[in-house]
Amino acid sequence: MIQRPTACLLVIGDEILTGRTQDVHIKYLGEKLSVQGIDLKEARVISDNIESIIKHINEVRSSFTYVFTTGGIGPTHDDKTAEAIAKAFNTPLEENVEALAMLQARWGKEVSPSNRRMARIPKGATLIENIVTQAPGFQIANVYVLAGVPSIMRAMVDTLLPNLKGGAPVKTKSISCLLGEGILAETLETLDQTYPSVQIGSYPFFLPQGHGTTIVIRGIQEENVEKVFSLLKIVIKNKGGIPAEDPTFLF
Amino acid sequence: MIQRPTACLLVIGDEILTGRTQDVHIKYLGEKLSVQGIDLKEARVISDNIESIIKHINEVRSSFTYVFTTGGIGPTHDDKTAEAIAKAFNTPLEENVEALAMLQARWGKEVSPSNRRMARIPKGATLIENIVTQAPGFQIANVYVLAGVPSIMRAMVDTLLPNLKGGAPVKTKSISCLLGEGILAETLETLDQTYPSVQIGSYPFFLPQGHGTTIVIRGIQEENVEKVFSLLKIVIKNKGGIPAEDPTFLF
Repeated sequence: MIQRPTACLLVIGDEILTGRTQDVHIKYLGEKLSVQGIDLKEARVISDNIESIIKHINEVRSSFTYVFTTGGIGPTHDDKTAEAIAKAFNTPLEENVEALAMLQARWGKEVSPSNRRMARIPKGATLIENIVTQAPGFQIANVYVLAGVPSIMRAMVDTLLPNLKGGAPVKTKSISCLLGEGILAETLETLDQTYPSVQIGSYPFFLPQGHGTTIVIRGIQEENVEKVFSLLKIVIKNKGGIPAEDPTFLF
Repeated sequence: MIQRPTACLLVIGDEILTGRTQDVHIKYLGEKLSVQGIDLKEARVISDNIESIIKHINEVRSSFTYVFTTGGIGPTHDDKTAEAIAKAFNTPLEENVEALAMLQARWGKEVSPSNRRMARIPKGATLIENIVTQAPGFQIANVYVLAGVPSIMRAMVDTLLPNLKGGAPVKTKSISCLLGEGILAETLETLDQTYPSVQIGSYPFFLPQGHGTTIVIRGIQEENVEKVFSLLKIVIKNKGGIPAEDPTFLF
């Protein structure tokens, strides 16, 4: 069995919890890590609150290979992530010369006191470049602290990813048909038991054009993923359905 | 200080963590609870794995007034939520007569063995009606187990909500301008300290048309929310910005 690194994401921000803002970070990071051979095993959306950030960081950082956080590293009073991470690691939060230089490159030598807050980095951390607005993220031990603004978060992830050690990439195939989940359930159970290295997910859909099931087949062993895919194709036909890799072809 | 009920959401599903599916439940529930006077304090996205579901349910159910779960109550092998919840509550999972009747109303007396799995409900739970596809969710103690299909999840939330005890509703106002966060940070800090009952969130935006800041003001005491809003309007004007309640008016 090939060992795969794991990851946990902490999305920090009341705006996600109140429903004001739609989270987009979980999907972006999940997809990118998956390609890199790293399993995003858990994501938590938590409040911009120092005690809450410390508690969650300390709960998850020993359980996963990598921990990512997004949000709370801007210049205002509600940006509490850097302070909380420093406290969680019991290290001082201090002005980082390199980070200040990055801010000065954007705002000139006379960076305002508020913007200068963004140069406060926990001691011992390494900076993560921000090509969009310069204010950097940082890494301390296995924790990667990223911005919450989606364009900046994405740029930071794309900068980081090539340097993270991944495992074997996962092969994914999916197949859809206009048969209900109940019709396929026994077959799926049998396939699940026969191919334990393959994860088989079953997702019903209910659209105005019709309802049916999409089955997602994932695994490191490509030949087994292909095998399950081919068997499912045959079963769907035998049960009177039309298998399609792209569900839009069904309508 | 008025006590407000709290909530935690567990989104159960590997499809969210792998990035295949965009989560929409956190935003929907967060918004609806907010209107009802209940604070969604935390959301976790976790794997379809019995041990993982048990662990998270038991971690959160004593810390929040309400716990909601979505996903994993369909008819296939990867639907493990009902079994996990029964184990977490140390109660048997058994066929529920009322749930079976609901399934029979849809599929006729001869419900297939797979679909019949959806009538397995932890002993002692109360059913939550599903007006879309009949297979019910359920409530046990303070845990509400909902479907993962968005249309069904929404219908279940809408059915449940009027029966949940909420606190005082939160008044929210927001104001945007084309000034950077750094320019407003000191003012926001002062307002934050002067009005501790009001939560002030600051969110930068970087759009092709321009960049600026949206400030969200939330609180139970409406007059304080209005006060902070009016003060911010004046400050933004004094600093050369144009305050707008709808940020699209800025462009």
